[in-house]
Amino acid sequence: MTLRVGIIGAGPSGMAQLRAFESARQKGAEIPEITCFEKQDDWGGQWNSSWRIGLDAHGEPVHTSMYRHLWSNGPKECLEFSDYSFDEHFGRAISSFPSREVLFDYIKGRVEKSDVRKYVRFNTVARHTTYNEETQEFTLTVEDLKTNLTETHVFDKLVVSTGHFSVPSVPEFTGIKSFPGEVLHAHDFRGAERFYGKKLLMIGSSYSAEDIGMQAHKMGAASITFSYRSTPMGYEWPENCVERPLATHFDGRTAYFSDGTHDDFDAVVLCTGYQHKYPFLPSELSLKSANVLYPANLYKGVVWQQNTNLFYLGAQDQYYTFNMFDAQAWYARDVMTGVIALPSIAEREANIQLWIERLAALPDHNAEADFQTDYLRELIAATDYPPFDLDAVSQLFKDWMHHKETDILGYRDMLHRSVVTGTMAVKHHTRWLNAMDDSMARYLNGPSQEVDTSTADVVDDILAVR
Amino acid sequence: MTLRVGIIGAGPSGMAQLRAFESARQKGAEIPEITCFEKQDDWGGQWNSSWRIGLDAHGEPVHTSMYRHLWSNGPKECLEFSDYSFDEHFGRAISSFPSREVLFDYIKGRVEKSDVRKYVRFNTVARHTTYNEETQEFTLTVEDLKTNLTETHVFDKLVVSTGHFSVPSVPEFTGIKSFPGEVLHAHDFRGAERFYGKKLLMIGSSYSAEDIGMQAHKMGAASITFSYRSTPMGYEWPENCVERPLATHFDGRTAYFSDGTHDDFDAVVLCTGYQHKYPFLPSELSLKSANVLYPANLYKGVVWQQNTNLFYLGAQDQYYTFNMFDAQAWYARDVMTGVIALPSIAEREANIQLWIERLAALPDHNAEADFQTDYLRELIAATDYPPFDLDAVSQLFKDWMHHKETDILGYRDMLHRSVVTGTMAVKHHTRWLNAMDDSMARYLNGPSQEVDTSTADVVDDILAVR
Repeated sequence: MTLRVGIIGAGPSGMAQLRAFESARQKGAEIPEITCFEKQDDWGGQWNSSWRIGLDAHGEPVHTSMYRHLWSNGPKECLEFSDYSFDEHFGRAISSFPSREVLFDYIKGRVEKSDVRKYVRFNTVARHTTYNEETQEFTLTVEDLKTNLTETHVFDKLVVSTGHFSVPSVPEFTGIKSFPGEVLHAHDFRGAERFYGKKLLMIGSSYSAEDIGMQAHKMGAASITFSYRSTPMGYEWPENCVERPLATHFDGRTAYFSDGTHDDFDAVVLCTGYQHKYPFLPSELSLKSANVLYPANLYKGVVWQQNTNLFYLGAQDQYYTFNMFDAQAWYARDVMTGVIALPSIAEREANIQLWIERLAALPDHNAEADFQTDYLRELIAATDYPPFDLDAVSQLFKDWMHHKETDILGYRDMLHRSVVTGTMAVKHHTRWLNAMDDSMARYLNGPSQEVDTSTADVVDDILAVR
Repeated sequence: MTLRVGIIGAGPSGMAQLRAFESARQKGAEIPEITCFEKQDDWGGQWNSSWRIGLDAHGEPVHTSMYRHLWSNGPKECLEFSDYSFDEHFGRAISSFPSREVLFDYIKGRVEKSDVRKYVRFNTVARHTTYNEETQEFTLTVEDLKTNLTETHVFDKLVVSTGHFSVPSVPEFTGIKSFPGEVLHAHDFRGAERFYGKKLLMIGSSYSAEDIGMQAHKMGAASITFSYRSTPMGYEWPENCVERPLATHFDGRTAYFSDGTHDDFDAVVLCTGYQHKYPFLPSELSLKSANVLYPANLYKGVVWQQNTNLFYLGAQDQYYTFNMFDAQAWYARDVMTGVIALPSIAEREANIQLWIERLAALPDHNAEADFQTDYLRELIAATDYPPFDLDAVSQLFKDWMHHKETDILGYRDMLHRSVVTGTMAVKHHTRWLNAMDDSMARYLNGPSQEVDTSTADVVDDILAVR
């Protein structure tokens, strides 16, 4: 009987899994019967952005955490598909840090050229999974959100590709319930225009805090205060930014910090990270992990230890993204189809532990990039995913981190070289700080938005926020 | 074998079901084995308020739609329990329109005096239900949100009391994705202080639009525009309010209306109602209904037509609330325990259709209040729930609606007489428009907040919003 594969989620990871099977089919392999369930009405996951917050049109949790004016915060050369280059998609060189819509177009381009959309059941949410040890089958209950009808499907292999940057972690703060201004998690942030002239408190010290803070600066916020739990980010911030240790409590619109200082704020953005959450899985199949580069219990970061018919894609914290999901999807495919034979559970566990021990000893971010590079190296070596110069990408990560240290508002204007095609990125017509139109049309065709005025004036002129 | 009853949700309806069984037990009846599952860490449902929006601390959809400075929008005399009066709870007369915390205290008081908290599994969410036609048993999968462990429970009877004012209905609007200000649904509204000086657009013409609009007025909003789909609310609004027909589209911060007018706004609040949503039920057991006074498929508004082991509480649109949930819970209890014998499915269907036909012919809101009064009358007559003067309550609803027509900012300062105890409400120390502290302590003990200044100044002085 043909192998039956269920894929939950058609974001970048789920799309990579579809592409992995399609690649095998094009090379003459027989491929399984595939069904991918996607609760949204289009694929792209996070990249399929929305103005909605909280719950979507069907009352399901909104998946995307992206926002207007989101531009890639890492070089596109670090995430390029080795089987589908930016040159192939756009037909010309572009800059290294495109906007969301441009990157979304790129990842759609590859799967649209393959004939894989037919495998996806859109507007269909996974509700409940059981596994029968005897028959070694998963029974998955899904709901068609348009008809509200529930159905069950039986699979031999199940791929979980629902991501882990959609369900916010939101701690409690004494007094926050009566803070009179806006309080929202980064997940519900949709644009910084309304923070013009406002005093903002960003709680957190990772990518969300940094980028939403700089978005607010770009849109004319009066001040941005970052509050960190353990370590300040330490960038050379614009002069209206300051870092403070942990906010301990609120009284009215005043926030108090653990260094004894306090200040008044108009809005609080909780950049406090995300949870792994799989409400459609029983606890014994559900990954519990912090956001780390090597979650326990996943062999090669992909195969569920206690049940090797279950696969997770993209469950790691991520330097690499799209190309890592590819490497994982190709690997998962070959395990599913028996091309790759798995070692014993003890050998797998020993391998996982080696990685986790190495992770615990990493001294800095550069070492983290090398760590994930080595992880990819091992995965790619095991399949026919087209190899690319991983050491060159690791160097790109280090250059990028250095650029951020040098110029947190300017690193997106830097140029990097593709390791897939050798193409050097070209300077964008507008510096990121002055780019007030993030559409693909403007990105590709201009005209430039460079003007000779202060940022606040640019916002006033172009967006007429006030 | 003892009957096993599962109750999903410990809001006012679930609490009523617990109380209904406890009342029978106190009268010497043998009661079933009861387990109630509540995803929050306390009971009270909507009344258990939270500053959170979107997803809660466990990543589950936030249940409450209530907000700071929410005061009852109907007379407390219309919702009084006939077996637990306001006099009994507070030991003195209070005003007719208390704040959220005061009403929450009242509904908690009754169940705290009964020993029923032991039946509730808090922090436990219902995930999946199946029904076995042969054994006539429900199998309910729940997840303990603190341990992430999933468990299954088997029940003979299942009560769905999860409410239907928690999952927002959010329509799409052309251009809204680039509206630069805040866009939120009423469900995510937590307080109007931040709308001081702002131009607000409220889309919708029911209770949420009216009350959030008046909250914003109270907190000093510059203007409030209400946009209605079919009929304006028509109250005698304060002079900074206006009603417009449907918003058709947005361009930047400008909203366009179907009468050809347009205006610029700082924020949009979508008061567009709620969905019935039961993701833990298979489609054949899941109520699909608009928010109406008599949903189809529920005999006596409570018993699921195709499976009389399944019960819904509070599934109606509501004039009556707490006392209606009581009447329903008492009725459901007596059906479960066989005290009430159900007629045939055809007779039940005929009865449902009679109500629905009558509903369709109702000419106005007064007739709606009478309709729900008659519905309660029938329910209460069937059980030992202490009867009360329903016609007097129906008259209270009509008086209240008349007061709103006369003075939308002042109707909460009116006084009504209890039909349970005959006690006349007493004048509150502060008019609603000037009450800037909604705590129970302030409500009960004062001092008054009546001051001789404009509303905006009151906000400035007391809340120091700006």
